[in-house]
Amino acid sequence: MGSLPLELFRPLDPESLSKEFMAVVDFIADYYREVELFPVSSPVNPGYLRQLLPAAASTFSEPIGAVLDDIKSCILPGLTHWQSPNFFGYFPATASTAGLLGEILCGGLNVVGFSWVASPAVTELETIVMDWMARLLELPAAFLSPGDCGFGGGGVIHGSTCEAVVCTLAAARDRALSRPGSRGRIDRLTVYASDQTHFTVQKAAKLVGIPPANFRVIPTSAASGYGLTAGGVRSAMAADSANGFEPVYLCGTVGTTAVGAVDPLPELGEVATEFGVWFHVDAAYAGSACIFPEFRGYLAGVVKADSFSMNPHKWLLSNMDCCCLWVQSSAALVDSLSTKPEILRNVVDYKDWQIALSRRFRALKLWVVMRKIGAANLMEHIRSDVAMAKHFERLVEMDSRFEVSAERRFALVCFRLKPTAGGGADVNRRLLEAVNGSGRAFMTHAVVGGEFVLRFAVGATLTELRHVEAAWRLIQEKAGELLMMIRLENRDDGDGNESNDHGIH
Amino acid sequence: MGSLPLELFRPLDPESLSKEFMAVVDFIADYYREVELFPVSSPVNPGYLRQLLPAAASTFSEPIGAVLDDIKSCILPGLTHWQSPNFFGYFPATASTAGLLGEILCGGLNVVGFSWVASPAVTELETIVMDWMARLLELPAAFLSPGDCGFGGGGVIHGSTCEAVVCTLAAARDRALSRPGSRGRIDRLTVYASDQTHFTVQKAAKLVGIPPANFRVIPTSAASGYGLTAGGVRSAMAADSANGFEPVYLCGTVGTTAVGAVDPLPELGEVATEFGVWFHVDAAYAGSACIFPEFRGYLAGVVKADSFSMNPHKWLLSNMDCCCLWVQSSAALVDSLSTKPEILRNVVDYKDWQIALSRRFRALKLWVVMRKIGAANLMEHIRSDVAMAKHFERLVEMDSRFEVSAERRFALVCFRLKPTAGGGADVNRRLLEAVNGSGRAFMTHAVVGGEFVLRFAVGATLTELRHVEAAWRLIQEKAGELLMMIRLENRDDGDGNESNDHGIH
Repeated sequence: MGSLPLELFRPLDPESLSKEFMAVVDFIADYYREVELFPVSSPVNPGYLRQLLPAAASTFSEPIGAVLDDIKSCILPGLTHWQSPNFFGYFPATASTAGLLGEILCGGLNVVGFSWVASPAVTELETIVMDWMARLLELPAAFLSPGDCGFGGGGVIHGSTCEAVVCTLAAARDRALSRPGSRGRIDRLTVYASDQTHFTVQKAAKLVGIPPANFRVIPTSAASGYGLTAGGVRSAMAADSANGFEPVYLCGTVGTTAVGAVDPLPELGEVATEFGVWFHVDAAYAGSACIFPEFRGYLAGVVKADSFSMNPHKWLLSNMDCCCLWVQSSAALVDSLSTKPEILRNVVDYKDWQIALSRRFRALKLWVVMRKIGAANLMEHIRSDVAMAKHFERLVEMDSRFEVSAERRFALVCFRLKPTAGGGADVNRRLLEAVNGSGRAFMTHAVVGGEFVLRFAVGATLTELRHVEAAWRLIQEKAGELLMMIRLENRDDGDGNESNDHGIH
Repeated sequence: MGSLPLELFRPLDPESLSKEFMAVVDFIADYYREVELFPVSSPVNPGYLRQLLPAAASTFSEPIGAVLDDIKSCILPGLTHWQSPNFFGYFPATASTAGLLGEILCGGLNVVGFSWVASPAVTELETIVMDWMARLLELPAAFLSPGDCGFGGGGVIHGSTCEAVVCTLAAARDRALSRPGSRGRIDRLTVYASDQTHFTVQKAAKLVGIPPANFRVIPTSAASGYGLTAGGVRSAMAADSANGFEPVYLCGTVGTTAVGAVDPLPELGEVATEFGVWFHVDAAYAGSACIFPEFRGYLAGVVKADSFSMNPHKWLLSNMDCCCLWVQSSAALVDSLSTKPEILRNVVDYKDWQIALSRRFRALKLWVVMRKIGAANLMEHIRSDVAMAKHFERLVEMDSRFEVSAERRFALVCFRLKPTAGGGADVNRRLLEAVNGSGRAFMTHAVVGGEFVLRFAVGATLTELRHVEAAWRLIQEKAGELLMMIRLENRDDGDGNESNDHGIH
């Protein structure tokens, strides 16, 4: 260790940067050109990659070309391609040129803005861009930053909804426990969500120390469009209060994971006020749609929410990761997440609005997305996805073997082969396997009202109408093959039993 | 919403990607060329950016050139430049070409690997690269993945140490509460750390529902090099046990934030075993150094830890964010973080090893870093930073006005103007302000043993010996000016008092 190096090793050399970048940029551009041709979901078996890669890191530097070659030959075949235009699974995770440029700028500047002073523009741009997004969504003024005057509402960029829920749950928990009249017992706090709420809320409640038994899952039904009802929530809270529990947190959802259902925010807000619970609105997926005038109505009632979150990394072209969380009282968050109660909080220190200390300059990415794409194009992006989903829905409706399983509100269509199509109980699961197994499209499923339904989520950035139509033709083709095969199986089963019977003789 | 779009809006066009990338890449390369000339810490006042930017998002698309112009004129002046070679504050957040290329690949593929099946290569590469890193650190085999056979130890990439601590604390909490003989009361669980432990542990304990009053801060002293002593921890745990508390979690640190102190892991491991507590080792900063043979000894004793974390995004050229967490029992993590207890866990689903559901393909970045840079160069990077810090330490020692305040172990030198230098109680704070105010270097401070000391953390990727030497000359120059000014102030005060006295007459 003694002597100083004669020649410094240069891991960050501006002179060679451009050349090495070009190799990677060309690789990425080629990927987008070719991704349509790849099997959407990977057919590899668990453990495949360990067979292909060495057991330890390289001792010496390797050229980027060698790394890219290995990504092509070893990694790409093991990916399920979320950027494929034939990806209709889960919810989309939309990439864009703007989002990617934002990521490069974020990674290139590589500043750490845990507090205002650690790199002021990181905090200030985040506050500004969260106000921009709030205005696009026409959120109530209470969620906007109070400007120069310190406390009030405001937004912060998290990595994920779960993080947003953990933080707001912790704030709700601490607010409840410190309330006059509280029994101060965390094991008496109760949390409310529906059977359609993302499991992240249940995980978060457990994480912040609320016993899993205190997590109330309110059932929904087809009658309420799989949304919560105020009555259901009210009676659950009243029963708990009567039994010595303290209701503390209610999560409403705009655009549930399974079918895109919407909980009735105005009514839920009233119940939340009645019982003094923290009301969080999770619009991870559908929040992006609410920049479009047609959908803003779904956010009516959000004024009664304590917090609201949506993920531009899902449907708003912002690449992973970017979850926007707004609160009406940042003080509640900070009281819970700061270890040092500051007497004078004259600047925002976002470390006190989130779990981690360190944080990436994600605001820069969101800012680049909003400027380079622009509000009008963002709306057009939502509009065209919804139009394609509507078109798909009509195609489903025109095939008498199929039915739409739940009301389509955004760009997610839930559908299935009807029981009358003659495929038996397992037919939709088998259809999903046949479609995904073809590699030509990828969907996922949900179980709602006890039924296995197929989810067709339009929204991948590269998806065009021709992909939607091709996917539908594929689904029809596989359904036809499957129904024929099932008829043959049923006949064979009959034959088999007969011949077996014969064999016994 | 009715008609389908005639011409699709193309937010991700492979044909225009390269051109737009080049503008950003050139911008980043120029930034690295020029960053040395910028004031390291930003002189802006709170609210500066709101004056410069519009109040709402652009309606229409703007060219990337306009965005870059605004970054140059509005954002850069508000940054404290963590990538400046004159940045010696906090701990470094090292960027590298390899890390940045890894980020682009991660953002470009933009796949979401929350579970194995969601995109298999994401999970498999993470397991492999975490094994690579474990081997570089020569971690005990118990922290490596068990290969194809399911359960055991293994590694996962988190975004931050706080996240890693929250998850391990939750696992420790749930393990303790479900233990036979536990009173099952979260409000009786106690957590142990030193007065030098990062505050993230305290925040995490509060977050998982352990009352702040149950967080035990064990004092350290200069005598133990600001490290915990086994005796101190043992008596605290014994006292708590005697008083009906259940000790649940002990955090040891390798390379504390303030002075880079190292807790004695082997002895702490014994105490942890004795009391059956979860033992976590936080090596966020110094863990990177432990790939270098000279420093591996600091990890002796980690075999008794339940979990170990270190952040390649700090000192191992991996850009933000990348925190590596290893556990000996992944089952303990999964039991706590999974909402669905799986009977058959034959693949790793990393969503159950972390807080969030969604996750970026950070493993790809770490893999690119390890291959493109290579283990030998990573070691050289550590070696040269430590050599520069040693050199700085010698420079401090050669100036009789200064003293080194704590043993230097890695690349962090803590020092101060001696009391005998004649500057008074506040002199080191004023020296820090003078140095940082010059814009020519940036340091932060710590308070240890009641003393305000200056922290000089070598490690920014672009830092060369000339920057370290220039920073030292600047410190000497500012110290000289300051001591002279203080002598003048003292004389003036004397004069002032006299003339004031005269005035009364």
